[in-house]
Amino acid sequence: MRIDLNADLGEGFGPWTMGEDQALMEIVSSANVACGFHAGDPLIMDTTVRRAKALGIDLGAHVGYPDLQGFGRRAMNIDLPELAACVVYQLGALAGMAAVVGHPMTHMSFHGALGNRVAADPHMAEVLVGAVARFDPSLIISSSSSQAIEAAADQHGLRVATTFLADRAYDRNCLLVPRGTPGAVIKDPAQVRQRVAQLLQHGTVTTLDGEAVKVNACSILLHGDTPGAVQLARQLRSFIEGQGAVITPVSQLVRS
Amino acid sequence: MRIDLNADLGEGFGPWTMGEDQALMEIVSSANVACGFHAGDPLIMDTTVRRAKALGIDLGAHVGYPDLQGFGRRAMNIDLPELAACVVYQLGALAGMAAVVGHPMTHMSFHGALGNRVAADPHMAEVLVGAVARFDPSLIISSSSSQAIEAAADQHGLRVATTFLADRAYDRNCLLVPRGTPGAVIKDPAQVRQRVAQLLQHGTVTTLDGEAVKVNACSILLHGDTPGAVQLARQLRSFIEGQGAVITPVSQLVRS
Amino acid sequence: MRIDLNADLGEGFGPWTMGEDQALMEIVSSANVACGFHAGDPLIMDTTVRRAKALGIDLGAHVGYPDLQGFGRRAMNIDLPELAACVVYQLGALAGMAAVVGHPMTHMSFHGALGNRVAADPHMAEVLVGAVARFDPSLIISSSSSQAIEAAADQHGLRVATTFLADRAYDRNCLLVPRGTPGAVIKDPAQVRQRVAQLLQHGTVTTLDGEAVKVNACSILLHGDTPGAVQLARQLRSFIEGQGAVITPVSQLVRS
Amino acid sequence: MRIDLNADLGEGFGPWTMGEDQALMEIVSSANVACGFHAGDPLIMDTTVRRAKALGIDLGAHVGYPDLQGFGRRAMNIDLPELAACVVYQLGALAGMAAVVGHPMTHMSFHGALGNRVAADPHMAEVLVGAVARFDPSLIISSSSSQAIEAAADQHGLRVATTFLADRAYDRNCLLVPRGTPGAVIKDPAQVRQRVAQLLQHGTVTTLDGEAVKVNACSILLHGDTPGAVQLARQLRSFIEGQGAVITPVSQLVRS
Repeated sequence: MRIDLNADLGEGFGPWTMGEDQALMEIVSSANVACGFHAGDPLIMDTTVRRAKALGIDLGAHVGYPDLQGFGRRAMNIDLPELAACVVYQLGALAGMAAVVGHPMTHMSFHGALGNRVAADPHMAEVLVGAVARFDPSLIISSSSSQAIEAAADQHGLRVATTFLADRAYDRNCLLVPRGTPGAVIKDPAQVRQRVAQLLQHGTVTTLDGEAVKVNACSILLHGDTPGAVQLARQLRSFIEGQGAVITPVSQLVRS
Repeated sequence: MRIDLNADLGEGFGPWTMGEDQALMEIVSSANVACGFHAGDPLIMDTTVRRAKALGIDLGAHVGYPDLQGFGRRAMNIDLPELAACVVYQLGALAGMAAVVGHPMTHMSFHGALGNRVAADPHMAEVLVGAVARFDPSLIISSSSSQAIEAAADQHGLRVATTFLADRAYDRNCLLVPRGTPGAVIKDPAQVRQRVAQLLQHGTVTTLDGEAVKVNACSILLHGDTPGAVQLARQLRSFIEGQGAVITPVSQLVRS
Repeated sequence: MRIDLNADLGEGFGPWTMGEDQALMEIVSSANVACGFHAGDPLIMDTTVRRAKALGIDLGAHVGYPDLQGFGRRAMNIDLPELAACVVYQLGALAGMAAVVGHPMTHMSFHGALGNRVAADPHMAEVLVGAVARFDPSLIISSSSSQAIEAAADQHGLRVATTFLADRAYDRNCLLVPRGTPGAVIKDPAQVRQRVAQLLQHGTVTTLDGEAVKVNACSILLHGDTPGAVQLARQLRSFIEGQGAVITPVSQLVRS
Repeated sequence: MRIDLNADLGEGFGPWTMGEDQALMEIVSSANVACGFHAGDPLIMDTTVRRAKALGIDLGAHVGYPDLQGFGRRAMNIDLPELAACVVYQLGALAGMAAVVGHPMTHMSFHGALGNRVAADPHMAEVLVGAVARFDPSLIISSSSSQAIEAAADQHGLRVATTFLADRAYDRNCLLVPRGTPGAVIKDPAQVRQRVAQLLQHGTVTTLDGEAVKVNACSILLHGDTPGAVQLARQLRSFIEGQGAVITPVSQLVRS
């Protein structure tokens, strides 16, 4: 039983930091690194890539809208050809850092408002995933479960790693319940652990309606930007290992 | 007798244009493309790379300071590790576009205030050229003559293509006379043509002091951002071809 | 018979220009100046304000989304309190320039995607117009006809100057027909002149459906960013004066 | 015996925070608020201005270079007319917030690399302080001791409030010893308190060379961006009050 632990990292900008990257990077097996559009800058990216190499964890590009002030969390009506160019620009920038450091990029994921939109819009998914495939057909798309992304990846011959968000409620289609909805965010650590155990043992999640549905996840997303987050992440890793699972970088879990 | 004609291209931003890229790209054999820091944005880069491929001209990254408002023309005191990361970020971003389009990047050059500084500062040249070499050891550095850059390229095993600025005065060390100096910029088209002829036939330039010094240039820089520039560039190309020179992309002129 | 001619000005950024501001400023009686969010920068704003003073034309702030790359033409989901702060920031910045130059700000208008949204959304209009009123209750809101903006201005005690877009089709509610719709943009100069004459003589516009509806406009918007625009603007001014109308700055046309 | 305590505040950007503004604002009597160029954004500015009003503390604009990524700490070669426009833009933006909230701006100060340069360059000081005076002749310039700024303020009829940095070494000309120099930064809280006591009782500071020189300060700068800074600031305020000094906003201490 193997599982990847991933986290969004390198989310500072200039003099500003977000989360405790150094501590979190010792817990995860895959890093999703911001590429300068919604967060991150060249120096932070460089530092994060070097640490990922030193720790032997997988390196992925976390691409977002060009909106530092809004942290990529505000939907923007950008035409698809321009948006595809924005995605490629960010992938290339991180791949440049990866080349210089000598630690190859293994995966990519969509951040924030861009992630929400692409997961729900098959046409946008088709265009953006197609751009990723043309950039590097060996990249893995890391995403919470999304038919739009899975179909697009399938069409373009890309592999998908489905990520499980242990602290978020799911609906019966295995989609995340929007944050605003009551019960959408699970704060009790014991309940989070219980959901992880269920995933590991049965490959299912219990929906808001109480139904157990299958989740095809090979990875679990950890958070690092709230007080106590690193402590919780460390405990969750111990718990997962206590369940007999081996923490494994995502690229070793997704078959080509 | 073969010579490259190059120009700085893709220097618009968002809704703003600069120069007549389309016309100029039909005249040059190599394009230096802005990478979003001093000019350019993902969509403009994408468009420019596609045109370079369609026209079969060489593709290079034109990297600058992160200062759109100042067009990269204002010196900034950025620490060298951060500056190196900025260079790699830009190289990677354009290489990403190149990968998607299927038209490889052949060369790079430093823009504006960054270019002036790196050409004059051996330590900065060593660090930044080293970063270029680690990014891609097959890239050519395109530069007006600079001992600092040539020494750094030599140390890191990179090839250099020296570019001749036919409308700028040189001193006896083959360095450009700063813009402010009287006589630094040559505006008379006949004189510009005469200087190109001298370069092609004798491999020399006559300095401000009236001395003929050797220039080891394999490329000539054309401008596109002033009124009438494209017309002048077209005439200069005809003149060069009339001299019996074959216009050739830079990567075919620089031996490895 | 008096009418204001206004135009969006100062829409360059850093080294980039847009439109022929100098020529256009000699034709209009009111300038709407970009404030650095969708276009413009401090130096351009300063230059534009000085010219407005020298020419004795009215000075207004043209406020937009914080999106230079998209020129403020892309809708962004920004929370209203933050959006109101963005509006005030831009008003203050231009008012600062106006104070230094000694040429007071008379009016403001909303640009691009922000303008479209606020004109159609009563709640957004209420919040943003309220912020304008708290900033300076003597400012005039310049806008194409919009019930949302007029109601909000009424509530907050602000005056509204309705602008007529002579080259755009209207519907029966006196709203602009969206650009995508066939017939939405009127390109024939003779037809544009005819529509201006109808406005001046009858105070009406003929809608896309062929119906004449009343327009309460005291101002006409001129464009300067397309080839030949300045020439057309100059001809339109002559035509308007030929109709016996006196070109008058907007602040002299709107009663308090 | 009255003294002002001031601090640089509102130095977050978008999702990123810096320092513990809320706690620090309950300790100081004057706030220097970042204006969006080196830090801060419209929403943060709005929030900070509202808090300043609620607490009854003085409100000042902290203006810097347009360089968020470098936090305004990197010198930039910006032409003086453009730099003056940048200063006015920032003053206006904060004054806009102040107008909306109904809490007037009392002072301004120069941040980071801009502050270092203007304090040392009489010509730059003359131009920038002149711009401040034309913006609002009632503003106080808050600065550590600088002949350049004092002379410029004198020429333009502006008042200056000299700020004492209790944790920084001074030279015999009452200038700050540059950060790099050994002994330039004083970390021992007891020594910091001793220096404050000496200022309050004797109006002097002991230089790095051991000489006591007169300081004409009416204000003390507190820091909030290091761990434990707020605790130290609170202790320093208690200590100052224990010395019998009354903490008083800067505008009440500087005569016109």
